[in-house]
Amino acid sequence: MQVKIASHYGFCFGVKRAIEIAQNYESSYTMGPLIHNKKEIDRLHKEHNVGLYENIDDVKNGDTVIIRTHGIPRDQLKTLRQQDAKIINATCPFVTTPQQIVKKISQEGYSILLFGDENHPEVKGVKSYAHDQNDIHVVLDLDQLKKIKFKYDKIATVAQTTRKKEQYLELVNYLILRNKEVRVFNTICDATFENQDATRDLSKQVDIMIVIGGKNSSNTKQLLHIAQENCYDSYLIEDETELEKSWFFGKNLCGITAGASTPDWIIQKVVKKIETL
Amino acid sequence: MQVKIASHYGFCFGVKRAIEIAQNYESSYTMGPLIHNKKEIDRLHKEHNVGLYENIDDVKNGDTVIIRTHGIPRDQLKTLRQQDAKIINATCPFVTTPQQIVKKISQEGYSILLFGDENHPEVKGVKSYAHDQNDIHVVLDLDQLKKIKFKYDKIATVAQTTRKKEQYLELVNYLILRNKEVRVFNTICDATFENQDATRDLSKQVDIMIVIGGKNSSNTKQLLHIAQENCYDSYLIEDETELEKSWFFGKNLCGITAGASTPDWIIQKVVKKIETL
Repeated sequence: MQVKIASHYGFCFGVKRAIEIAQNYESSYTMGPLIHNKKEIDRLHKEHNVGLYENIDDVKNGDTVIIRTHGIPRDQLKTLRQQDAKIINATCPFVTTPQQIVKKISQEGYSILLFGDENHPEVKGVKSYAHDQNDIHVVLDLDQLKKIKFKYDKIATVAQTTRKKEQYLELVNYLILRNKEVRVFNTICDATFENQDATRDLSKQVDIMIVIGGKNSSNTKQLLHIAQENCYDSYLIEDETELEKSWFFGKNLCGITAGASTPDWIIQKVVKKIETL
Repeated sequence: MQVKIASHYGFCFGVKRAIEIAQNYESSYTMGPLIHNKKEIDRLHKEHNVGLYENIDDVKNGDTVIIRTHGIPRDQLKTLRQQDAKIINATCPFVTTPQQIVKKISQEGYSILLFGDENHPEVKGVKSYAHDQNDIHVVLDLDQLKKIKFKYDKIATVAQTTRKKEQYLELVNYLILRNKEVRVFNTICDATFENQDATRDLSKQVDIMIVIGGKNSSNTKQLLHIAQENCYDSYLIEDETELEKSWFFGKNLCGITAGASTPDWIIQKVVKKIETL
Protein backbone atom coordinates (compact mmCIF):
# COMPACT_ATOMS: atom_id res chain seq x y z
CA MET A 1 0.00 0.00 0.00
CA GLN A 2 1.28 3.42 -0.98
CA VAL A 3 1.13 6.01 1.82
CA LYS A 4 0.90 9.81 1.75
CA ILE A 5 1.18 11.83 4.96
CA ALA A 6 -0.61 15.16 5.38
CA SER A 7 1.57 18.25 4.92
CA HIS A 8 0.71 19.25 8.53
CA TYR A 9 -0.19 16.72 11.22
CA GLY A 10 0.28 15.79 14.87
CA PHE A 11 2.22 17.85 17.37
CA CYS A 12 2.40 21.59 17.00
CA PHE A 13 5.66 23.51 17.43
CA GLY A 14 5.00 24.22 21.12
CA VAL A 15 4.31 20.59 22.06
CA LYS A 16 7.34 19.28 20.14
CA ARG A 17 9.48 21.83 21.96
CA ALA A 18 8.03 20.92 25.39
CA ILE A 19 8.74 17.22 24.86
CA GLU A 20 12.31 17.92 23.79
CA ILE A 21 12.77 20.01 26.91
CA ALA A 22 11.33 17.22 29.12
CA GLN A 23 13.68 14.68 27.53
CA ASN A 24 16.60 16.94 28.39
CA TYR A 25 15.68 17.05 32.08
CA GLU A 26 15.86 13.46 33.33
CA SER A 27 14.09 12.86 36.65
CA SER A 28 12.10 16.09 36.41
CA TYR A 29 8.38 16.52 37.05
CA THR A 30 5.81 18.16 34.81
CA MET A 31 3.22 20.40 36.46
CA GLY A 32 0.09 18.71 35.09
CA PRO A 33 0.23 16.23 32.15
CA LEU A 34 2.51 17.52 29.39
CA ILE A 35 0.10 16.41 26.65
CA HIS A 36 -3.21 14.55 26.49
CA ASN A 37 -1.63 11.26 25.42
CA LYS A 38 -1.04 8.63 28.07
CA LYS A 39 1.31 6.55 25.91
CA GLU A 40 3.68 9.48 25.41
CA ILE A 41 3.60 10.36 29.12
CA ASP A 42 4.39 6.69 29.94
CA ARG A 43 7.29 6.78 27.46
CA LEU A 44 8.73 9.94 29.03
CA HIS A 45 8.45 8.30 32.43
CA LYS A 46 10.07 5.03 31.31
CA GLU A 47 12.82 6.47 29.12
CA HIS A 48 13.58 9.72 30.96
CA ASN A 49 12.08 9.24 34.43
CA VAL A 50 9.86 12.29 33.94
CA GLY A 51 7.23 12.32 36.71
CA LEU A 52 3.91 14.09 37.01
CA TYR A 53 2.64 16.49 39.68
CA GLU A 54 -1.08 17.18 39.62
CA ASN A 55 -0.89 19.66 42.49
CA ILE A 56 1.54 22.44 43.25
CA ASP A 57 1.65 21.40 46.94
CA ASP A 58 3.26 18.10 45.92
CA VAL A 59 6.44 19.90 44.81
CA LYS A 60 9.41 19.33 47.12
CA ASN A 61 12.50 21.47 47.63
CA GLY A 62 15.11 20.78 45.00
CA ASP A 63 12.68 19.30 42.46
CA THR A 64 13.05 20.19 38.79
CA VAL A 65 9.60 21.22 37.66
CA ILE A 66 8.61 21.65 34.01
CA ILE A 67 5.87 24.16 33.21
CA ARG A 68 3.83 22.80 30.33
CA THR A 69 2.91 24.51 27.04
CA HIS A 70 -0.27 26.12 28.44
CA GLY A 71 1.71 28.08 31.04
CA ILE A 72 0.56 28.55 34.64
CA PRO A 73 -0.94 31.44 36.62
CA ARG A 74 1.47 33.95 38.06
CA ASP A 75 0.75 33.15 41.71
CA GLN A 76 1.55 29.47 41.11
CA LEU A 77 4.85 30.47 39.50
CA LYS A 78 5.56 32.56 42.59
CA THR A 79 4.72 29.60 44.87
CA LEU A 80 7.02 27.34 42.85
CA ARG A 81 9.85 29.84 43.24
CA GLN A 82 9.30 30.01 46.99
CA GLN A 83 9.53 26.23 47.18
CA ASP A 84 13.08 26.44 45.92
CA ALA A 85 12.27 24.25 42.93
CA LYS A 86 14.31 24.46 39.73
CA ILE A 87 11.79 25.78 37.21
CA ILE A 88 12.04 24.82 33.54
CA ASN A 89 9.62 26.89 31.53
CA ALA A 90 8.22 24.95 28.55
CA THR A 91 5.37 27.40 28.06
CA CYS A 92 4.75 27.67 24.31
CA PRO A 93 6.17 30.97 23.01
CA PHE A 94 2.78 31.57 21.37
CA VAL A 95 1.28 31.52 24.88
CA THR A 96 4.03 33.60 26.48
CA THR A 97 3.17 36.36 23.97
CA PRO A 98 -0.41 37.00 25.20
CA GLN A 99 0.84 36.72 28.82
CA GLN A 100 3.35 39.50 28.19
CA ILE A 101 0.88 41.61 26.20
CA VAL A 102 -1.63 41.45 29.06
CA LYS A 103 1.04 42.32 31.61
CA LYS A 104 2.22 45.38 29.66
CA ILE A 105 -1.06 46.71 28.29
CA SER A 106 -2.97 46.48 31.57
CA GLN A 107 -0.61 49.10 32.97
CA GLU A 108 -1.21 51.50 30.07
CA GLY A 109 -4.84 52.38 30.75
CA TYR A 110 -6.57 49.72 28.68
CA SER A 111 -9.43 47.46 29.69
CA ILE A 112 -8.78 43.93 28.43
CA LEU A 113 -10.93 41.44 26.58
CA LEU A 114 -9.63 37.86 26.58
CA PHE A 115 -11.42 35.64 24.07
CA GLY A 116 -11.34 32.08 25.33
CA ASP A 117 -12.58 29.48 27.78
CA GLU A 118 -12.14 30.69 31.36
CA ASN A 119 -11.64 27.11 32.57
CA HIS A 120 -8.76 26.39 30.18
CA PRO A 121 -5.30 26.40 31.83
CA GLU A 122 -3.87 28.66 29.09
CA VAL A 123 -6.59 31.26 29.69
CA LYS A 124 -6.18 31.10 33.46
CA GLY A 125 -2.48 31.72 32.98
CA VAL A 126 -2.84 34.63 30.55
CA LYS A 127 -5.56 36.26 32.69
CA SER A 128 -3.35 36.14 35.78
CA TYR A 129 -0.91 38.61 34.19
CA ALA A 130 -3.42 41.51 34.22
CA HIS A 131 -2.58 44.31 36.63
CA ASP A 132 -6.27 44.79 37.48
CA GLN A 133 -7.99 41.41 37.74
CA ASN A 134 -11.38 43.19 37.74
CA ASP A 135 -10.82 44.77 34.32
CA ILE A 136 -9.80 41.72 32.28
CA HIS A 137 -12.88 39.97 30.95
CA VAL A 138 -12.95 36.42 29.58
CA VAL A 139 -15.73 35.69 27.09
CA LEU A 140 -16.54 32.97 24.59
CA ASP A 141 -19.19 34.75 22.53
CA LEU A 142 -20.99 37.98 21.71
CA ASP A 143 -23.79 37.41 24.21
CA GLN A 144 -21.27 37.29 27.03
CA LEU A 145 -19.41 40.31 25.66
CA LYS A 146 -22.59 42.43 25.54
CA LYS A 147 -22.94 42.09 29.31
CA ILE A 148 -19.41 43.32 30.10
CA LYS A 149 -18.84 46.77 31.60
CA PHE A 150 -15.30 47.90 30.80
CA LYS A 151 -13.56 50.49 32.93
CA TYR A 152 -12.09 52.41 29.96
CA ASP A 153 -13.17 53.24 26.38
CA LYS A 154 -9.77 52.01 25.25
CA ILE A 155 -9.87 48.23 24.95
CA ALA A 156 -7.05 45.78 24.24
CA THR A 157 -7.98 42.30 23.04
CA VAL A 158 -6.11 38.99 23.08
CA ALA A 159 -7.30 35.49 22.22
CA GLN A 160 -6.64 31.96 23.40
CA THR A 161 -4.24 30.49 20.82
CA THR A 162 -6.63 27.77 19.60
CA ARG A 163 -9.72 29.90 18.98
CA LYS A 164 -11.29 30.55 15.58
CA LYS A 165 -10.32 33.84 13.95
CA GLU A 166 -13.78 34.50 12.53
CA GLN A 167 -15.27 34.42 16.04
CA TYR A 168 -12.53 36.70 17.32
CA LEU A 169 -13.32 39.25 14.58
CA GLU A 170 -16.99 39.19 15.55
CA LEU A 171 -16.14 40.25 19.11
CA VAL A 172 -13.54 42.78 18.00
CA ASN A 173 -15.93 44.42 15.51
CA TYR A 174 -18.55 44.83 18.23
CA LEU A 175 -15.96 46.67 20.34
CA ILE A 176 -14.61 48.86 17.51
CA LEU A 177 -18.08 50.28 16.86
CA ARG A 178 -18.47 51.24 20.53
CA ASN A 179 -15.06 52.43 21.69
CA LYS A 180 -12.54 55.13 20.86
CA GLU A 181 -9.68 52.71 20.47
CA VAL A 182 -9.45 48.94 20.18
CA ARG A 183 -6.01 47.44 20.17
CA VAL A 184 -6.30 44.03 18.60
CA PHE A 185 -3.52 41.52 19.19
CA ASN A 186 -3.75 38.53 16.91
CA THR A 187 -2.56 35.80 19.28
CA ILE A 188 -4.32 32.94 17.51
CA CYS A 189 -2.02 30.15 16.38
CA ASP A 190 -2.50 28.58 12.96
CA ALA A 191 -1.31 25.07 13.93
CA THR A 192 -4.75 23.54 14.60
CA PHE A 193 -6.16 24.97 11.39
CA GLU A 194 -3.11 23.96 9.36
CA ASN A 195 -3.69 20.32 10.40
CA GLN A 196 -7.34 20.65 9.41
CA ASP A 197 -6.58 22.26 6.05
CA ALA A 198 -3.93 19.65 5.26
CA THR A 199 -6.39 16.85 6.14
CA ARG A 200 -8.98 18.39 3.82
CA ASP A 201 -6.50 18.59 0.95
CA LEU A 202 -5.13 15.08 1.41
CA SER A 203 -8.54 13.41 1.81
CA LYS A 204 -9.46 14.58 -1.70
CA GLN A 205 -6.48 12.78 -3.21
CA VAL A 206 -6.59 9.32 -1.58
CA ASP A 207 -8.69 6.13 -1.53
CA ILE A 208 -8.61 5.68 2.23
CA MET A 209 -7.78 7.98 5.16
CA ILE A 210 -6.33 6.91 8.52
CA VAL A 211 -6.63 9.46 11.33
CA ILE A 212 -4.44 8.68 14.35
CA GLY A 213 -5.37 10.09 17.76
CA GLY A 214 -7.37 9.74 20.95
CA LYS A 215 -10.95 8.57 20.44
CA ASN A 216 -12.06 11.15 23.01
CA SER A 217 -9.98 13.99 21.58
CA SER A 218 -12.25 16.66 20.08
CA ASN A 219 -9.38 17.81 17.90
CA THR A 220 -8.87 14.29 16.46
CA LYS A 221 -12.59 13.75 15.93
CA GLN A 222 -12.68 17.05 14.03
CA LEU A 223 -9.96 15.71 11.69
CA LEU A 224 -11.97 12.50 11.13
CA HIS A 225 -15.06 14.53 10.34
CA ILE A 226 -13.16 16.62 7.76
CA ALA A 227 -11.62 13.50 6.20
CA GLN A 228 -15.03 11.82 5.90
CA GLU A 229 -16.42 14.76 3.99
CA ASN A 230 -14.12 13.93 1.07
CA CYS A 231 -13.16 10.30 1.58
CA TYR A 232 -15.84 7.76 2.51
CA ASP A 233 -13.31 5.24 3.83
CA SER A 234 -11.88 7.22 6.72
CA TYR A 235 -10.96 5.55 10.01
CA LEU A 236 -9.90 6.76 13.44
CA ILE A 237 -7.35 4.63 15.31
CA GLU A 238 -5.27 5.13 18.46
CA ASP A 239 -2.34 2.97 17.29
CA GLU A 240 -1.26 0.41 14.68
CA THR A 241 -2.88 -2.55 16.50
CA GLU A 242 -6.32 -1.30 15.47
CA LEU A 243 -5.63 -1.42 11.72
CA GLU A 244 -7.78 -3.97 9.83
CA LYS A 245 -6.59 -5.55 6.57
CA SER A 246 -10.08 -5.56 5.06
CA TRP A 247 -10.17 -1.74 4.97
CA PHE A 248 -7.42 -1.71 2.35
CA PHE A 249 -8.84 -4.19 -0.22
CA GLY A 250 -8.90 -2.59 -3.67
CA LYS A 251 -7.28 0.64 -2.42
CA ASN A 252 -4.09 2.12 -3.90
CA LEU A 253 -3.26 5.26 -1.94
CA CYS A 254 -3.69 5.72 1.83
CA GLY A 255 -3.66 9.19 3.40
CA ILE A 256 -2.48 9.61 6.99
CA THR A 257 -2.98 12.39 9.48
CA ALA A 258 -2.83 12.68 13.27
CA GLY A 259 -4.33 14.72 16.09
CA ALA A 260 -2.36 17.36 17.95
CA SER A 261 -1.52 15.02 20.86
CA THR A 262 -0.25 12.10 18.79
CA PRO A 263 3.52 11.52 19.02
CA ASP A 264 5.55 10.84 15.91
CA TRP A 265 6.68 7.38 17.02
CA ILE A 266 3.08 6.13 17.08
CA ILE A 267 2.50 7.64 13.62
CA GLN A 268 5.66 5.94 12.27
CA LYS A 269 4.51 2.52 13.54
CA VAL A 270 1.19 3.00 11.74
CA VAL A 271 2.90 4.07 8.51
CA LYS A 272 5.24 1.07 8.55
CA LYS A 273 2.44 -1.40 9.12
CA ILE A 274 0.28 0.06 6.33
CA GLU A 275 3.21 0.02 3.88
CA THR A 276 3.55 -3.74 4.36
CA LEU A 277 -0.12 -4.39 3.59
CA MET B 1 -49.85 73.33 7.54
CA GLN B 2 -48.43 71.53 10.57
CA VAL B 3 -44.65 71.12 10.48
CA LYS B 4 -42.33 68.57 12.12
CA ILE B 5 -38.56 68.98 11.93
CA ALA B 6 -36.23 65.96 11.93
CA SER B 7 -34.55 65.18 15.27
CA HIS B 8 -31.16 65.71 13.57
CA TYR B 9 -30.68 67.98 10.57
CA GLY B 10 -28.39 70.55 8.95
CA PHE B 11 -25.06 71.66 10.38
CA CYS B 12 -23.02 69.26 12.44
CA PHE B 13 -21.32 70.32 15.67
CA GLY B 14 -18.03 71.18 13.94
CA VAL B 15 -19.61 73.45 11.29
CA LYS B 16 -21.79 75.28 13.85
CA ARG B 17 -18.68 75.88 15.94
CA ALA B 18 -16.64 77.14 12.94
CA ILE B 19 -19.35 79.63 11.97
CA GLU B 20 -19.58 80.96 15.52
CA ILE B 21 -15.81 81.38 15.52
CA ALA B 22 -15.92 83.25 12.18
CA GLN B 23 -18.64 85.56 13.48
CA ASN B 24 -16.42 86.40 16.45
CA TYR B 25 -13.54 87.49 14.21
CA GLU B 26 -14.80 90.42 12.14
CA SER B 27 -12.69 91.20 9.05
CA SER B 28 -10.93 87.86 9.14
CA TYR B 29 -10.34 85.51 6.19
CA THR B 30 -11.17 81.83 5.91
CA MET B 31 -8.60 79.56 4.28
CA GLY B 32 -10.87 78.01 1.61
CA PRO B 33 -14.70 78.28 1.83
CA LEU B 34 -15.94 77.63 5.37
CA ILE B 35 -18.87 75.51 4.12
CA HIS B 36 -20.32 74.53 0.75
CA ASN B 37 -23.13 77.06 0.89
CA LYS B 38 -22.69 80.32 -1.00
CA LYS B 39 -25.57 82.10 0.77
CA GLU B 40 -24.00 81.51 4.19
CA ILE B 41 -20.59 82.65 2.96
CA ASP B 42 -22.22 85.80 1.51
CA ARG B 43 -23.95 86.43 4.85
CA LEU B 44 -20.69 86.09 6.78
CA HIS B 45 -19.10 88.53 4.35
CA LYS B 46 -21.95 91.08 4.55
CA GLU B 47 -22.62 90.87 8.29
CA HIS B 48 -19.09 90.19 9.62
CA ASN B 49 -16.78 91.18 6.78
CA VAL B 50 -15.35 87.65 6.69
CA GLY B 51 -13.31 87.27 3.48
CA LEU B 52 -12.12 84.21 1.60
CA TYR B 53 -8.60 83.15 0.60
CA GLU B 54 -8.38 80.36 -1.94
CA ASN B 55 -4.60 80.24 -1.85
CA ILE B 56 -2.14 80.42 1.02
CA ASP B 57 0.07 82.84 -0.96
CA ASP B 58 -2.72 85.45 -0.81
CA VAL B 59 -2.30 85.81 2.96
CA LYS B 60 -0.73 89.12 4.01
CA ASN B 61 1.16 89.97 7.19
CA GLY B 62 -1.17 90.82 10.01
CA ASP B 63 -4.19 89.03 8.53
CA THR B 64 -6.47 86.99 10.77
CA VAL B 65 -6.86 83.63 9.07
CA ILE B 66 -9.46 81.04 10.06
CA ILE B 67 -8.64 77.39 9.44
CA ARG B 68 -11.84 75.62 8.44
CA THR B 69 -13.34 72.44 9.93
CA HIS B 70 -11.39 70.09 7.60
CA GLY B 71 -8.05 71.35 8.95
CA ILE B 72 -5.02 72.00 6.76
CA PRO B 73 -1.75 70.18 6.09
CA ARG B 74 1.08 70.80 8.53
CA ASP B 75 3.37 72.55 6.04
CA GLN B 76 0.62 75.05 5.19
CA LEU B 77 0.18 75.77 8.90
CA LYS B 78 3.91 76.38 9.12
CA THR B 79 3.79 78.73 6.11
CA LEU B 80 0.91 80.66 7.70
CA ARG B 81 2.91 81.06 10.91
CA GLN B 82 5.90 82.36 8.95
CA GLN B 83 3.69 84.96 7.30
CA ASP B 84 3.00 86.47 10.70
CA ALA B 85 -0.75 85.90 10.30
CA LYS B 86 -3.00 85.57 13.34
CA ILE B 87 -4.23 81.99 13.08
CA ILE B 88 -7.67 81.03 14.38
CA ASN B 89 -8.05 77.29 14.34
CA ALA B 90 -11.63 76.22 13.61
CA THR B 91 -10.62 72.67 12.75
CA CYS B 92 -13.38 70.37 14.00
CA PRO B 93 -12.27 68.61 17.21
CA PHE B 94 -13.31 65.32 15.55
CA VAL B 95 -10.68 66.06 12.85
CA THR B 96 -8.01 67.24 15.29
CA THR B 97 -8.25 63.82 16.98
CA PRO B 98 -7.05 61.73 13.98
CA GLN B 99 -4.36 64.38 13.27
CA GLN B 100 -2.98 63.96 16.79
CA ILE B 101 -3.31 60.16 16.71
CA VAL B 102 -1.32 60.02 13.46
CA LYS B 103 1.33 62.35 14.86
CA LYS B 104 1.81 60.29 18.03
CA ILE B 105 1.44 56.77 16.71
CA SER B 106 3.74 57.25 13.72
CA GLN B 107 6.58 57.76 16.16
CA GLU B 108 5.82 54.55 18.06
CA GLY B 109 6.74 52.01 15.38
CA TYR B 110 3.38 51.60 13.67
CA SER B 111 2.60 51.67 9.97
CA ILE B 112 -0.57 53.67 9.37
CA LEU B 113 -3.68 53.00 7.33
CA LEU B 114 -5.88 56.03 6.67
CA PHE B 115 -9.30 55.10 5.33
CA GLY B 116 -10.57 57.95 3.17
CA ASP B 117 -10.37 59.93 -0.06
CA GLU B 118 -6.81 61.12 -0.68
CA ASN B 119 -8.11 64.22 -2.48
CA HIS B 120 -10.28 65.37 0.43
CA PRO B 121 -8.84 68.31 2.42
CA GLU B 122 -9.47 66.54 5.74
CA VAL B 123 -7.49 63.49 4.60
CA LYS B 124 -4.64 65.61 3.23
CA GLY B 125 -4.45 67.35 6.60
CA VAL B 126 -4.52 64.16 8.70
CA LYS B 127 -1.98 62.44 6.45
CA SER B 128 0.46 65.35 6.79
CA TYR B 129 0.89 64.61 10.51
CA ALA B 130 2.63 61.26 9.92
CA HIS B 131 6.30 61.18 10.84
CA ASP B 132 7.09 58.95 7.84
CA GLN B 133 5.08 60.07 4.81
CA ASN B 134 6.04 56.84 3.04
CA ASP B 135 4.42 54.62 5.66
CA ILE B 136 0.96 56.19 5.91
CA HIS B 137 -1.32 54.71 3.28
CA VAL B 138 -4.62 56.23 2.15
CA VAL B 139 -7.14 53.76 0.71
CA LEU B 140 -10.82 53.77 -0.11
CA ASP B 141 -11.42 50.04 -0.44
CA LEU B 142 -10.11 46.51 0.02
CA ASP B 143 -8.65 46.26 -3.49
CA GLN B 144 -6.42 49.25 -2.79
CA LEU B 145 -5.50 47.90 0.64
CA LYS B 146 -4.41 44.53 -0.78
CA LYS B 147 -1.71 46.28 -2.83
CA ILE B 148 -0.17 48.11 0.14
CA LYS B 149 3.19 47.05 1.56
CA PHE B 150 3.45 48.20 5.17
CA LYS B 151 6.81 48.71 6.82
CA TYR B 152 5.80 47.05 10.12
CA ASP B 153 3.51 44.19 11.21
CA LYS B 154 2.02 46.57 13.75
CA ILE B 155 -0.61 48.71 12.03
CA ALA B 156 -2.57 51.66 13.36
CA THR B 157 -5.74 52.67 11.55
CA VAL B 158 -7.71 55.92 11.42
CA ALA B 159 -10.64 56.94 9.23
CA GLN B 160 -11.92 60.09 7.58
CA THR B 161 -14.74 61.32 9.85
CA THR B 162 -17.51 60.93 7.24
CA ARG B 163 -16.79 57.36 6.11
CA LYS B 164 -19.09 54.39 6.67
CA LYS B 165 -18.24 52.20 9.65
CA GLU B 166 -19.07 48.94 7.87
CA GLN B 167 -16.48 49.68 5.18
CA TYR B 168 -13.91 50.60 7.83
CA LEU B 169 -14.46 47.25 9.57
CA GLU B 170 -13.91 45.41 6.29
CA LEU B 171 -10.45 46.96 5.94
CA VAL B 172 -9.60 46.50 9.60
CA ASN B 173 -10.59 42.82 9.58
CA TYR B 174 -8.35 42.19 6.60
CA LEU B 175 -5.44 43.67 8.55
CA ILE B 176 -6.18 41.83 11.83
CA LEU B 177 -5.94 38.46 10.08
CA ARG B 178 -2.53 39.35 8.66
CA ASN B 179 -0.71 41.31 11.36
CA LYS B 180 0.48 40.85 14.93
CA GLU B 181 -1.24 43.96 16.19
CA VAL B 182 -3.83 46.30 14.73
CA ARG B 183 -4.61 49.41 16.69
CA VAL B 184 -8.00 50.60 15.54
CA PHE B 185 -9.00 54.18 16.26
CA ASN B 186 -12.66 54.82 15.65
CA THR B 187 -12.51 58.37 14.29
CA ILE B 188 -15.76 58.21 12.33
CA CYS B 189 -18.30 60.86 13.29
CA ASP B 190 -21.97 59.96 13.61
CA ALA B 191 -23.36 63.32 12.48
CA THR B 192 -23.97 62.44 8.80
CA PHE B 193 -25.62 59.17 9.73
CA GLU B 194 -27.72 60.78 12.46
CA ASN B 195 -29.23 63.16 9.87
CA GLN B 196 -29.94 60.19 7.59
CA ASP B 197 -31.52 58.10 10.35
CA ALA B 198 -33.66 61.03 11.51
CA THR B 199 -34.82 61.64 7.92
CA ARG B 200 -35.77 57.98 7.57
CA ASP B 201 -37.78 58.07 10.82
CA LEU B 202 -39.57 61.31 10.03
CA SER B 203 -40.43 60.42 6.44
CA LYS B 204 -42.48 57.47 7.74
CA GLN B 205 -44.68 59.77 9.82
CA VAL B 206 -45.57 62.61 7.44
CA ASP B 207 -47.62 63.32 4.28
CA ILE B 208 -44.95 65.43 2.58
CA MET B 209 -41.19 65.86 3.09
CA ILE B 210 -39.19 69.01 2.31
CA VAL B 211 -35.41 68.53 2.11
CA ILE B 212 -33.46 71.81 2.17
CA GLY B 213 -29.97 71.94 0.69
CA GLY B 214 -27.78 72.39 -2.37
CA LYS B 215 -29.06 70.63 -5.51
CA ASN B 216 -25.50 69.53 -6.24
CA SER B 217 -24.73 68.39 -2.68
CA SER B 218 -24.34 64.61 -2.57
CA ASN B 219 -25.20 64.64 1.11
CA THR B 220 -28.52 66.50 0.48
CA LYS B 221 -29.40 64.26 -2.47
CA GLN B 222 -28.84 61.26 -0.19
CA LEU B 223 -31.38 62.70 2.28
CA LEU B 224 -33.91 63.19 -0.55
CA HIS B 225 -33.38 59.61 -1.67
CA ILE B 226 -34.01 58.29 1.86
CA ALA B 227 -37.12 60.49 2.24
CA GLN B 228 -38.54 59.26 -1.07
CA GLU B 229 -38.25 55.65 0.02
CA ASN B 230 -40.95 56.25 2.64
CA CYS B 231 -42.78 59.38 1.48
CA TYR B 232 -43.76 59.71 -2.20
CA ASP B 233 -44.20 63.51 -1.95
CA SER B 234 -40.61 64.49 -1.12
CA TYR B 235 -39.07 67.66 -2.57
CA LEU B 236 -35.58 69.16 -2.59
CA ILE B 237 -35.36 72.98 -2.38
CA GLU B 238 -32.51 75.41 -1.84
CA ASP B 239 -34.65 78.05 -0.11
CA GLU B 240 -38.25 79.12 0.62
CA THR B 241 -38.74 80.80 -2.77
CA GLU B 242 -38.90 77.39 -4.44
CA LEU B 243 -41.88 76.15 -2.40
CA GLU B 244 -45.03 75.50 -4.47
CA LYS B 245 -48.50 75.72 -2.92
CA SER B 246 -49.84 72.85 -5.03
CA TRP B 247 -47.52 70.36 -3.27
CA PHE B 248 -49.43 70.81 -0.01
CA PHE B 249 -53.05 70.29 -1.19
CA GLY B 250 -54.73 67.64 0.93
CA LYS B 251 -51.67 67.23 3.20
CA ASN B 252 -51.75 67.60 6.98
CA LEU B 253 -48.22 67.08 8.28
CA CYS B 254 -45.02 68.27 6.58
CA GLY B 255 -41.62 66.86 7.58
CA ILE B 256 -38.53 69.00 7.20
CA THR B 257 -34.87 68.11 7.08
CA ALA B 258 -31.73 69.80 5.76
CA GLY B 259 -28.32 68.90 4.35
CA ALA B 260 -25.12 69.36 6.34
CA SER B 261 -24.30 72.70 4.67
CA THR B 262 -27.69 74.36 5.16
CA PRO B 263 -27.71 77.18 7.73
CA ASP B 264 -30.48 77.44 10.30
CA TRP B 265 -31.70 80.83 9.08
CA ILE B 266 -32.61 79.38 5.67
CA ILE B 267 -34.39 76.46 7.39
CA GLN B 268 -36.35 78.87 9.60
CA LYS B 269 -37.55 80.87 6.58
CA VAL B 270 -38.79 77.66 4.97
CA VAL B 271 -40.57 76.56 8.16
CA LYS B 272 -42.31 79.90 8.56
CA LYS B 273 -43.53 79.97 4.97
CA ILE B 274 -44.89 76.40 5.16
CA GLU B 275 -46.71 77.15 8.44
CA THR B 276 -48.66 79.94 6.74
CA LEU B 277 -49.82 77.69 3.90
